[in-house]
Amino acid sequence: MKLRGNMRVNTAGHLEIGGCDTVDLVRDFGTPLYVLDEAMVRSQCRSYRENLAAVYPDSMVIYAGKALMTMAICRVIDEEGLGMDVVSGGELYTAFKAGFPMEKVFFHGNNKSHEELRMALEYGVGIIVVDNLYELENLNALALQKGRKASVLFRLTPGVEAHTHSYTQTGQQDSKFGLGIQDGVARQVISHALTLPGIEVKGVHCHIGSQIFDIEPYKLAVKIMFDFLEDLRQLNGFEVEILDMGGGLGIVYHEGDQPATVESCVNLIGSAVKEEAQNRNYPLPKLVLEPGRSLVGEAGVTLYNVGSIKEIPGIRSYLAVNGGMADNPRVALYQAEYEGMIANKANLHPDKLVTVTGKCCESGDMLIWDIHLAQPQSGDILAIFSTGAYNYSMASNYNRLPRPAMVSVINGQADLIVARETYQDLLSLDRIPGRLQKLSAVSGNRF
Amino acid sequence: MKLRGNMRVNTAGHLEIGGCDTVDLVRDFGTPLYVLDEAMVRSQCRSYRENLAAVYPDSMVIYAGKALMTMAICRVIDEEGLGMDVVSGGELYTAFKAGFPMEKVFFHGNNKSHEELRMALEYGVGIIVVDNLYELENLNALALQKGRKASVLFRLTPGVEAHTHSYTQTGQQDSKFGLGIQDGVARQVISHALTLPGIEVKGVHCHIGSQIFDIEPYKLAVKIMFDFLEDLRQLNGFEVEILDMGGGLGIVYHEGDQPATVESCVNLIGSAVKEEAQNRNYPLPKLVLEPGRSLVGEAGVTLYNVGSIKEIPGIRSYLAVNGGMADNPRVALYQAEYEGMIANKANLHPDKLVTVTGKCCESGDMLIWDIHLAQPQSGDILAIFSTGAYNYSMASNYNRLPRPAMVSVINGQADLIVARETYQDLLSLDRIPGRLQKLSAVSGNRF
Repeated sequence: MKLRGNMRVNTAGHLEIGGCDTVDLVRDFGTPLYVLDEAMVRSQCRSYRENLAAVYPDSMVIYAGKALMTMAICRVIDEEGLGMDVVSGGELYTAFKAGFPMEKVFFHGNNKSHEELRMALEYGVGIIVVDNLYELENLNALALQKGRKASVLFRLTPGVEAHTHSYTQTGQQDSKFGLGIQDGVARQVISHALTLPGIEVKGVHCHIGSQIFDIEPYKLAVKIMFDFLEDLRQLNGFEVEILDMGGGLGIVYHEGDQPATVESCVNLIGSAVKEEAQNRNYPLPKLVLEPGRSLVGEAGVTLYNVGSIKEIPGIRSYLAVNGGMADNPRVALYQAEYEGMIANKANLHPDKLVTVTGKCCESGDMLIWDIHLAQPQSGDILAIFSTGAYNYSMASNYNRLPRPAMVSVINGQADLIVARETYQDLLSLDRIPGRLQKLSAVSGNRF
Repeated sequence: MKLRGNMRVNTAGHLEIGGCDTVDLVRDFGTPLYVLDEAMVRSQCRSYRENLAAVYPDSMVIYAGKALMTMAICRVIDEEGLGMDVVSGGELYTAFKAGFPMEKVFFHGNNKSHEELRMALEYGVGIIVVDNLYELENLNALALQKGRKASVLFRLTPGVEAHTHSYTQTGQQDSKFGLGIQDGVARQVISHALTLPGIEVKGVHCHIGSQIFDIEPYKLAVKIMFDFLEDLRQLNGFEVEILDMGGGLGIVYHEGDQPATVESCVNLIGSAVKEEAQNRNYPLPKLVLEPGRSLVGEAGVTLYNVGSIKEIPGIRSYLAVNGGMADNPRVALYQAEYEGMIANKANLHPDKLVTVTGKCCESGDMLIWDIHLAQPQSGDILAIFSTGAYNYSMASNYNRLPRPAMVSVINGQADLIVARETYQDLLSLDRIPGRLQKLSAVSGNRF
C-alpha cells in the first residue's frame, strides 16, 4: 500500500506520520484520533499556489473549508497565503475568530440567511458568491442599509457535470445551485445586478463536481463560461474582473484511484482560461480556484483501537474498532472505499483478510469491507488513510459517541487542534424542564 | 396528508402540535426546530407496555435510546415505566445523569470498550447484552475485579432478517452483531459463560431488523430462538429467565407506508412466545421488547424557514430551507422519503409541486424530491413530519451548521429540551497551538 505524504515505517516497525510514532500519539491522545499531516497540507497549498501562479500569474487559490475546518487549520491556510471559501455563518465565524483576513474570504451557499448575509457584510468578507435572485435582492437591500456595496460573484450552472472517471454535459440544468446559462436566467439576473446600487459585480463562478480524476471537463467548462462572458459583454458591455472555476480535484482513497496531479490540473485550467480569453480578445480576469479535498484529504489518518474480532467460519472475519460511521460517515453515505494498516505492525506483511466495522448499533456502520491486515489482534491500532476531508466535518454524535480529538503533526511535533469531546460535552445543551425533573436524581449523580 | 398524533389545523390556519401553534413556536424558539409531541410519545409507550402486559404479563418494554436520546426524554421514558436500551458510554451517561433507574438499563453494542464495561458495572446497569466472546472474557475479568457478578444476555443471530415489506432467512449469518446459532458459536459461548464466576447468564436476545412493516418474521424468529433454548437446555440443563426479542417496528414516513400496529405486533410476539414455550414445556421467560423508532419517530416534526425558491423552467422548482442533511441525514443515507406542509398555510390546498433542498454545499443535500405545498413563499415555515427518530441523534455540524434546538410540546405548553447550538459552541473544542497563533487576531475579534 502506498504511504501518503510524510508517512514512513520506523525502526520499531510502527507507522510514523510527520515524524510522530502513531503508537506514541495513541498513548498521548487516545483513540479514535484524527491525525493531520500538516506538512502535507502545506505542501499541497504551495503546489496549488505556485503551479497556478506559474501558468497564470493573476490568480488566487482559496481553500474550500467545508472539507475540514477548525481554527488551527484556518491559521495554516492563512500562513500558506491562500484565501478561504466558507459556506455558512459557522464557517465564517470560525475563520473570523482564527484571525483569517476577511478580505480573502469568499462566502458561498445556495441559501444564505439574512443573518448570514448581514454577518458577511459586517465582517467585511471579500466576495459574496450570489446563488440566486432572492439572495441578490436581500443582499442589495442589506448593503444599502449599511451604506455599502457588496462585491459579488454569481454562481452559474454551466451544464457540465464531472464524475470520477467521466462527465456529462447536460442540456438541462437540474441543480439546486446557481443560475442557469442555457435557460437565460444567468444573463438576466446579472444584467439586473449591474443596475443595483448595493451590488458590485466582480465576476462569475462555477463548480463542476467532486473527487474528479479526469480533468478534461474543466476545459469544456472554461469554454462555456467564456461563451457566456462574451454574451454578457455583447449584451451590456460588462467584462468580469474575477473568474472562479471552483474545485473538485480527486484524491487517492484506495489503491485503484488515479487522480490527475495538482500541477496538471491547474495547468490545464490556467491554459484554457488564457486561450479562451485570447480567442475572444477578453481581458484576462483574476483566476480563482477552490480546492478542498485535494488539500487535506490524503493528509488525514484516523487511528482506532481494535476491539472485538469475530470469525464467522467460512463467511467473514469482522474486526470492530472504537469508532465508525459517527466519525466517518462517508462509507455509509457514498459507499466510499478506504484502505489502511495495523499501525503498530507496519513492517509485517498484511496477510489476513478482514472486514472493518465500527461500534455503532447499525448494520450500515462499516468502514472497510475487505482489507488485508497484518496479524490483527484486539488492542492493536488500526490506521485508516485519506480521512482528512469530510470525516471530522461530517462527524456526528450518533449513539452519543463523543467526537474524536485531532492532532496536527509536523517535524516530530504533535499539537492538539481539536480537543476530544467528553460525556459532559454531550449533555451541555440538554435541558430538563421543571415538570420533568426528578428530585432523587441529584443524589444519584455520584459519578 | 395524514396528520400525526396531536396535530391539528387551528382556526388561524396554522399547524398546531400538542396544542402549540407552530408559528408561535418558531417566533419563540427559531428555526430549524425539532418539535416533539410528548403526549404521542407517552401514548406510544403506554400502548406498548399495556398491550404487551395484556398478552404476556411478565414483560418489560425498554426504549432503544439510539433513536433519540436527551436527558428530558429519559425522564419521560422513566415516568412511563419503561426501561432503557443504551448502546454506548455516552448514552449510559445521559440516562444516569437524568436519574434513570440503572437497574432498568440494558447495555447493548458490538464493541463495548473496557471503560464502557467498567462504567456499566459501576453504575449498576441491570443487564449487559454480551455480543461476543472477547467481550465476555473482558466483562468476566472486570466483574471479578469488582467482586461482582454481571447479569448478561447474549445477542444471537437467528438468521432472520426482516425488511420493510419482506424478509429473508439466511443460512449464513453474515452480521457484525451477535453469536451465530446455526454455526454452533452461540451454544459454545453460552455454555462457557455458565462456567464463569463473574457472569450470571440471564437469557438471550435477537434483533431482526428496522422499520419493519410485515411482522410475520418475528414469529419465525421466536421459533428459532426457542429451538435454540431447547438445544441449550438439552446441552446443559440451563433455562433462561429473560428473552429479549428486540425492536424494529416501522412507522409512517410517507403516505404509502402501512406498518403493523403496536397492538398487533406485541400480540403476535407475546402469543408466539407463549405458544413456543408451551409446546416445549419451557418455563415462560420474562419477555423484553425494545422499540425505538416506533415510540418517537412520528412524534417528531422539524420546522424550517423557507429561503430561496428557484424555478428552473420546465424542469423543477427548488425550495431551499435553512437546514438539511446536517439535521436530517436520513435522505442522503437511506433515500428516506418524507412528507410535510407549509405550517403557516395548513388550511390551504397543497397545489405547487416542489423539491425541498437544504442549505449544505453538497448536491446530495436533499430533503424531499417531490412534494405538493400550498403557495410556498420565502419566509414561510415548512414542517417535515416523522423526524423524531434518527434525525437529532444522527445530526452533524456539517458546513459548521449549529444543530437545531428541540422543544417538547404537550397540552399547549412548549419546553426547551435541547438548547440551540451557537457559533461559540462550534469552537469550544478548537485549539490553536502556540506556534500557529496570530497575535493580530486578538484586535480583529470585535464581533
